[in-house]
Order: sequence, then structure tokens, then C-alpha cells
Amino acid sequence: MIIIGEKINGFIPKTLEAFKNQDEDYIRYLAKGQSDAGATYIDVCAGTAAEIEHETMEWLINLVQDATDTPLCVDSSDPSIIVDMLPLVNKVGCINSISMEEGKCEAILPIISGTDWRVVALTCDMNGIPDNPKDKFKIARQIVERTDEAGIARDNVLIDPLVTTLATCQDSLKSFVEAERLILDEYPDVHITSGLSNISYGLPYRKIVNMEFLALTMANGMDSAIIDPMSQDMLACMYAVEALNGNDKHCKKYLKAYRNGLFGKKA
Amino acid sequence: MIIIGEKINGFIPKTLEAFKNQDEDYIRYLAKGQSDAGATYIDVCAGTAAEIEHETMEWLINLVQDATDTPLCVDSSDPSIIVDMLPLVNKVGCINSISMEEGKCEAILPIISGTDWRVVALTCDMNGIPDNPKDKFKIARQIVERTDEAGIARDNVLIDPLVTTLATCQDSLKSFVEAERLILDEYPDVHITSGLSNISYGLPYRKIVNMEFLALTMANGMDSAIIDPMSQDMLACMYAVEALNGNDKHCKKYLKAYRNGLFGKKA
Repeated sequence: MIIIGEKINGFIPKTLEAFKNQDEDYIRYLAKGQSDAGATYIDVCAGTAAEIEHETMEWLINLVQDATDTPLCVDSSDPSIIVDMLPLVNKVGCINSISMEEGKCEAILPIISGTDWRVVALTCDMNGIPDNPKDKFKIARQIVERTDEAGIARDNVLIDPLVTTLATCQDSLKSFVEAERLILDEYPDVHITSGLSNISYGLPYRKIVNMEFLALTMANGMDSAIIDPMSQDMLACMYAVEALNGNDKHCKKYLKAYRNGLFGKKA
Repeated sequence: MIIIGEKINGFIPKTLEAFKNQDEDYIRYLAKGQSDAGATYIDVCAGTAAEIEHETMEWLINLVQDATDTPLCVDSSDPSIIVDMLPLVNKVGCINSISMEEGKCEAILPIISGTDWRVVALTCDMNGIPDNPKDKFKIARQIVERTDEAGIARDNVLIDPLVTTLATCQDSLKSFVEAERLILDEYPDVHITSGLSNISYGLPYRKIVNMEFLALTMANGMDSAIIDPMSQDMLACMYAVEALNGNDKHCKKYLKAYRNGLFGKKA
């Protein structure tokens, strides 16, 4: 599993508070904690007003790189911010995100062409997020054509089929899984990822809905997730599903993660 | 989901202790608690030495019927005990279990023929539990032929394809799901159930492995489980998966269960 640690994001109120207070200790704690929990990348998203996004991102990137060796996932809805930030990053990482919205592929793909940078690709375009899995697949195909042209290895493309909210859409999982299968049938070498917490929006006890969504999408080939790896039950779920899916002989990885205290500790 | 509450079972050390101490309050607590948590049936299994099984079962059945209106699941490996107990039971319930082991169908099927009693059927025979899903299916077919002959409705047959232990068998889930699909493809009207805790035997933090096994087997058509409904996270998992599987419009059942305190309460 490719785990993108989601905690350093200004859309999370507590994290935004830390940004406002220039609370470097808290940011370091989130960086180190996610790294220790096995994050493949640490997402860094200012999520702040446009006029301070640049300086916030710069501050965060320097802080996180200082706190951990785990590569970054540079996250902004503004591709020019991503382009500006890349020279500050000292280790090949991941970009979050491109899509078929105008200007995204154009800005991002040339600068990672021929490198080992990974990129998260959202199945949306100028018309928004399609409801239909087939339309999501069509956008995924357009994106893979663009990343292929740019010489980006399929292994470096993480497609996020953008889950809808379960409380308002009974078919959220079914639709996501269909998109997932269409994409993997055509492009078995790309990765499927999900910023999955949208599934549980508006519901109580969101944790369990997020966990079971993770389990059921992993069973259909999802091999990456944008999650909080410091959430012990989420991580436990991931290790358990890996073992149940036959990817963990004698449950060695599950047992090691447990022994290392990544989950199952008494609160 | 058909939930069989598993707590009143002498194979659980704490419950056995209560049997030994004739602790009626504790048995009533387990009966009431499982009933309140939405159990369809309350399993009653003495799990004691043969010479006291009869009297223990009798005591338990009277106690549980006194404590709750939820129907019983009469559970013994000895079919003659089940036959003896049925006249004591005041409400149509479930029998746990039959299999193709000699004497089981012969003893049990005639007494529930033409009734609405349900029966759990294990996919094992005189040669034990087959490893291969196809062999499990063959046993399931033999059992369904027997229940058909006895005039037992398919809806009253709950087949348990007997999960193996994940720690020693990497393919436990895959094999179970294959058996599940073979059975449901041929007999879409029977139910699939699982006394699922065997999956996590020998592993730490068993709860999460049990939960994710439940999620992944439900996604493949399992619609019953022999579980502890008083385990809030297990129940939350079940409600979340039902909603994710598209069986809970606007998450009404999930929300109601949460509001009724069945899960998500702070410990």
C-alpha cells in the first residue's frame, strides 16, 4: 500500500490553527507521527487564503523535511504553487494533484517528465466530477494518455476515482468500485488511491465507514489511500485487509506492525 | 443480516465460569444485551462435559427464554441433545448445527420438517473439513438435497463454509469467498453464515481481523454471522457495510442504530 499521510492540511481545523499560530512543534509531531506510522508520503497542503498559500507552503515544506526523511506529497489546487514549490523539495515525492481541469496537466506534467515523481490524478474535468463510473474511466483514460505522452511511468500515476458521499448517494461504493475496475482492467500498472473520508461526510462515527470503505475498495484492487496513518484502527484495518487478501504470508507484516505499536494499543 | 448472538457458550471461559457458578444474572445480562443489540437468535451452547450437558442446556434455555423474547439458537454437537431440548423451546428458532457427519441430518431434519425452524449447516462430513472450496460446495449440495427432501425451505438453511485460520492459511478469505459464491450461484435462496472468529485465531488484536473478514464476506453475499453483537465495533462494521453495499437508503438503519447507542458510544 502506498499511504499518503493526510494530517498536514489546512482544511483540517486543528492543523489550520497550528498554521495560524506558527506552531512548529505540532507540525513536526504530525510529520514524525505519520512517518513512524509508515506513511509513504507526507501530504503538505496549506489550504489557506491564496495570498498566503505560497509562504505557508514554503514554511511547511522546510519544517516537514527537517522533521522526517519521508518524501513529501506537495498538495495544492493551484498548479503554479506546486511548480514553485518543487525546487524546495529535496527528495523525489508525489504531487497532489492533476485532473483534466484546464491548466493542470499542462503545468505539472512537463516538470515531472522523465523523473520518478509520482502524481495523484483526479477523475474530474471542466464539467466537474462525473456521476457515472464510465465517465470517470474516460477521464482516467485522457489522463493516462497525457502521462504516457509525458513519459511518466504508469507506476507513478495514482488515480483517484473521487468517491461520493454515502449519506446522499446509496451507490457510492458500487460506483467507485466500478470505476476502479474499469481503470485497472485497462491500465493494470497504475495505482488506485482515494482521499476517502468524503464517503462518511455527514454521518456519525465516521471512522468505521472510512475503514470499511477502505477494506472493500482494497478488495477490488485499490493499493493506495490518503488517510491518517496515526489513526490506529484505520491502520489496523489496512494491515488486516492486506493479510486477508493473501498479501501477508503468515501475517508477518500484521504481527510486526502490532509489535511496533502501530495499532492495538490500549488507549 | 441474520445475527446469531454467540455469547452464551461454554467454550467462552467467562461464560463457562458463570455456568459453573450458576450465575443467572450474568446469563440474563448476556441474553438481554444481545437481544437489545439486535440479535436475531440467541445461541445457547452448554459446551460442558457430556454428563451435564443436558441439565445445563435445560437450565440455560429456561433462563434465556425468561430474560428475552428473542428466539433461541439451540447449539450442540450432539444431535440427541438438540432433539431433547426442542420441546422446551417456546418459540420457533434456529438449530446449530447439522453437517454431513453421520447421524446429524438423520436426527435433526425430521423434527424440523414442515416447521419454520432454521438450521445452520456446516460444510464438513465424516472426513472432516475439506480445504478446497469445491469440496465444501459438494457437501453444501448434499445438505441442500437433504433439506429439500425434508421439505425445509431454502430460506431456513444457513450454510457455514467453515473459515480456516488466517495465521496458518494465507488463502482463508479467498477460499471462503469461493465456497460462498459457488453455493450462492447454485442456491441463491439459502443464507451464508459464519462462526467467523476462527479466522483470527493466534493473532493479536483479533477484533479487527474478525471485523474485516465480516466486511469482505458480506461484500460477497454473506448475510448472516455468528458474532457478539454486544461488541460495538463489530456491530458498527456490520451496519457500515450494509450501507456501503447499498442496502440502507439514506443510511437510515445506520443512523438509527447509532442513535440507539448500539455503537459509537465513548467507552
